[in-house]
Amino acid sequence: MKVCKFGGTSLASAEQMQKVASIVMADPERKIVVVSAPGKRFKEDTKVTDLLISLADAALSNGDVKEALRLVVSRYEQIALELKLSSSIVSIIEDDLLSRLGTKDEGEREFIDLMKASGEDNNAKLFSFYMQSLGVNAHFVDPKDVGLVLSKEYGNAQVLPEAYENLYKELRNKDGVLIFPGFFGYTQEGTLVTFPRGGSDITGSIVAAAVQADLYENFTDVDSVFAANPNVVQNPMEIEELTYREMRELSYAGFSVFHDEALIPAFKKGVPVCIKNTNNPSARGTMVVNERNYLINPVIGIASDSGFSTIYVRKYLMNREIGFGRRLLEIIEDEGLSYEHMPSGIDDTSVILKGAQLTLEIEARIVDRIEKELDADDVHVEHDFAMVMVVGEGMKKMVGITAKATTGLARAGVNLHMINQGSSEVSMVFGVKATDADKAVRELYNDFFVATKTPVL
Amino acid sequence: MKVCKFGGTSLASAEQMQKVASIVMADPERKIVVVSAPGKRFKEDTKVTDLLISLADAALSNGDVKEALRLVVSRYEQIALELKLSSSIVSIIEDDLLSRLGTKDEGEREFIDLMKASGEDNNAKLFSFYMQSLGVNAHFVDPKDVGLVLSKEYGNAQVLPEAYENLYKELRNKDGVLIFPGFFGYTQEGTLVTFPRGGSDITGSIVAAAVQADLYENFTDVDSVFAANPNVVQNPMEIEELTYREMRELSYAGFSVFHDEALIPAFKKGVPVCIKNTNNPSARGTMVVNERNYLINPVIGIASDSGFSTIYVRKYLMNREIGFGRRLLEIIEDEGLSYEHMPSGIDDTSVILKGAQLTLEIEARIVDRIEKELDADDVHVEHDFAMVMVVGEGMKKMVGITAKATTGLARAGVNLHMINQGSSEVSMVFGVKATDADKAVRELYNDFFVATKTPVL
Repeated sequence: MKVCKFGGTSLASAEQMQKVASIVMADPERKIVVVSAPGKRFKEDTKVTDLLISLADAALSNGDVKEALRLVVSRYEQIALELKLSSSIVSIIEDDLLSRLGTKDEGEREFIDLMKASGEDNNAKLFSFYMQSLGVNAHFVDPKDVGLVLSKEYGNAQVLPEAYENLYKELRNKDGVLIFPGFFGYTQEGTLVTFPRGGSDITGSIVAAAVQADLYENFTDVDSVFAANPNVVQNPMEIEELTYREMRELSYAGFSVFHDEALIPAFKKGVPVCIKNTNNPSARGTMVVNERNYLINPVIGIASDSGFSTIYVRKYLMNREIGFGRRLLEIIEDEGLSYEHMPSGIDDTSVILKGAQLTLEIEARIVDRIEKELDADDVHVEHDFAMVMVVGEGMKKMVGITAKATTGLARAGVNLHMINQGSSEVSMVFGVKATDADKAVRELYNDFFVATKTPVL
Repeated sequence: MKVCKFGGTSLASAEQMQKVASIVMADPERKIVVVSAPGKRFKEDTKVTDLLISLADAALSNGDVKEALRLVVSRYEQIALELKLSSSIVSIIEDDLLSRLGTKDEGEREFIDLMKASGEDNNAKLFSFYMQSLGVNAHFVDPKDVGLVLSKEYGNAQVLPEAYENLYKELRNKDGVLIFPGFFGYTQEGTLVTFPRGGSDITGSIVAAAVQADLYENFTDVDSVFAANPNVVQNPMEIEELTYREMRELSYAGFSVFHDEALIPAFKKGVPVCIKNTNNPSARGTMVVNERNYLINPVIGIASDSGFSTIYVRKYLMNREIGFGRRLLEIIEDEGLSYEHMPSGIDDTSVILKGAQLTLEIEARIVDRIEKELDADDVHVEHDFAMVMVVGEGMKKMVGITAKATTGLARAGVNLHMINQGSSEVSMVFGVKATDADKAVRELYNDFFVATKTPVL
């Protein structure tokens, strides 16, 4: 059996829902369909989830709830009308929203999660209603009824281990097509809680893992994952197959096809994932697998992410001082910051982190603490770096990849402020000035994907 | 004024002492001479310091003190005879040793330090006696009389700040040539303590810093510092000038001209250092300075050091876990280990350290602790790595150095297991299999010092 997940743009309108229905009906193995809330229909459109957040805000601030509610309901109404569905489904949705609004005094965070989750919940009901209208034996599944139990962390819930058994028992042998709302579940006590960003992807991955699906199909609005960001590189190559580890490294550095951590449940159960396009379902898509033959194409993609800062620390005899690195990280941690890399020399070390974490105040305090508490000779912070990543499974085992990459970057006149290679077997990270990032990505893409395929040395 | 320091081989025999005397007399600016104990005269010879350690051991274990003592005294006696000195200096030395031997029950560590330090102490007396015999106004200086005060750490003493003032006051304006024994000083309470390894270099550097010398000349047995290890590269280039930071990075990776940390006192006071050859004093030597024009030769040397191991740790979502790196280093520290580098990916990190620290037992315990305490998905240790360093001031500001290095290493078929660039502005570190280290050094030396000087990209 296959579990398919459809994103917001795939379910944003009647036309899109028709595509999704055809896709589901085209393959009898597609037994479980995880749905998002209706997304944007066009560039300036507003996602239903955002309309719901506005509605929740209006309710909490005693603002214009009526108008905000109308905006939400009308989105479903329009879809129902175009799909020629009975208006009863719209009443069901409106009643559901009114009943949720009635709980606003029971706790703000509970209320916000409950309102946000209605987007997926009602869309699943609507889609199920539509599938039934097409004569499909479709059923809406309430995550509460099938035991999708999560930790009690509003907006950031984690799946509990028993959820997998519950879902297996309840879903594995059910008849018909099951329509499952993404993004939320329930605590052991029955309170609704939502996942962090990318929540429907997480639901899809958990369900696919739980029912031990043969394939988890993640439908979105691109034909595949590309070897580089199409906004930076013109017509980048489509990736046919990549490993989980490669996907994760690429996602980390700005490939936002979907939330990479969402894949972990499927990965851990060994369920292969296929990324496909709702608008072009015949395109092969990109397979995310456990292993691939990396000898054919050792490099799978070039990614980059900006907004990094480095805290540089120099102290004589640093390398003799047992505990220096640990104490430095303690200060970083103490200030609530997470770091990405920590390259170190003999007498100096740098901590590279997301610059958005550093306010002027935090930055000044950290510099001061490192100087005083660690008795450092020099501490300074530099901003506006980008991390450019060359990603590819088995890179560590091939000679010459680094030479090819650094030669290209030198040719493009990009100065390397940092290289991190040696821990990950799947990537090589180059720290460059943010202003050089696009140039670096284009050069590396050209070197590894366009230029005459000289064999790697 | 200049402070000169002569190493053990420079003072190992009468012939060598004559060379040293001529060097000192050739320049009236050479006012303070720091001397080591007599070193090896030929490859299989034994250093006086080692004879003294045997003597101390014999005394402590009630062994054959007489024979061990004779071996020490005869070394000085032979030098005195050949220099045609009065036998009174030999009696002075023998009496001094007998008096030191008499203190063996006052504490073992005190006794060992006292015995070891006699090598330099008596050699300074002998050399001073010899200089006087040549008609030079030379004086032996007792470190106790001039306030070289150290922390009370036997065999590992650190200089105390007040020593600098004391030495300035006592030495700066003294007449004649001062002969100062290296390697030891005294605690505030007057107990003799020795420096760690490389101790005479430390004394020289402290004295040069204290008297604000114009130059600190460190005489050894090579014409200069070389751009690569002569045992690996045939006839490597001589380095005319390098910075303290470059010297330190080179020393760290196996360039053992002298103990690099010894330079710090001179460095902090801005005293330039010259490394010269006692056996060829007219050779220019190598200057160690604060700054140099690195545009001419961005790379100054290639060094390598072997015996490294890596502890690889993988855990999903490691990069989301605030405190993971710190907790990992806490375990490393808790086991009493110091580490060199810690490259990190998204889900994995490696700790690179000197393998000699890892017994099988410690290794097993660390792997177990990381698995359990940090709940890691994979932990394993790999051995037999070497770190190959390309050292050069200002490397960070030049485009293309990395490309040149990695291209060379690829051509030589060397697989890069780690690259660390980005903290030090002076070096780039490549982790390779120990079996590839010499090949890597030769290739890099060839690329940066021999091959047609293509301009750096």
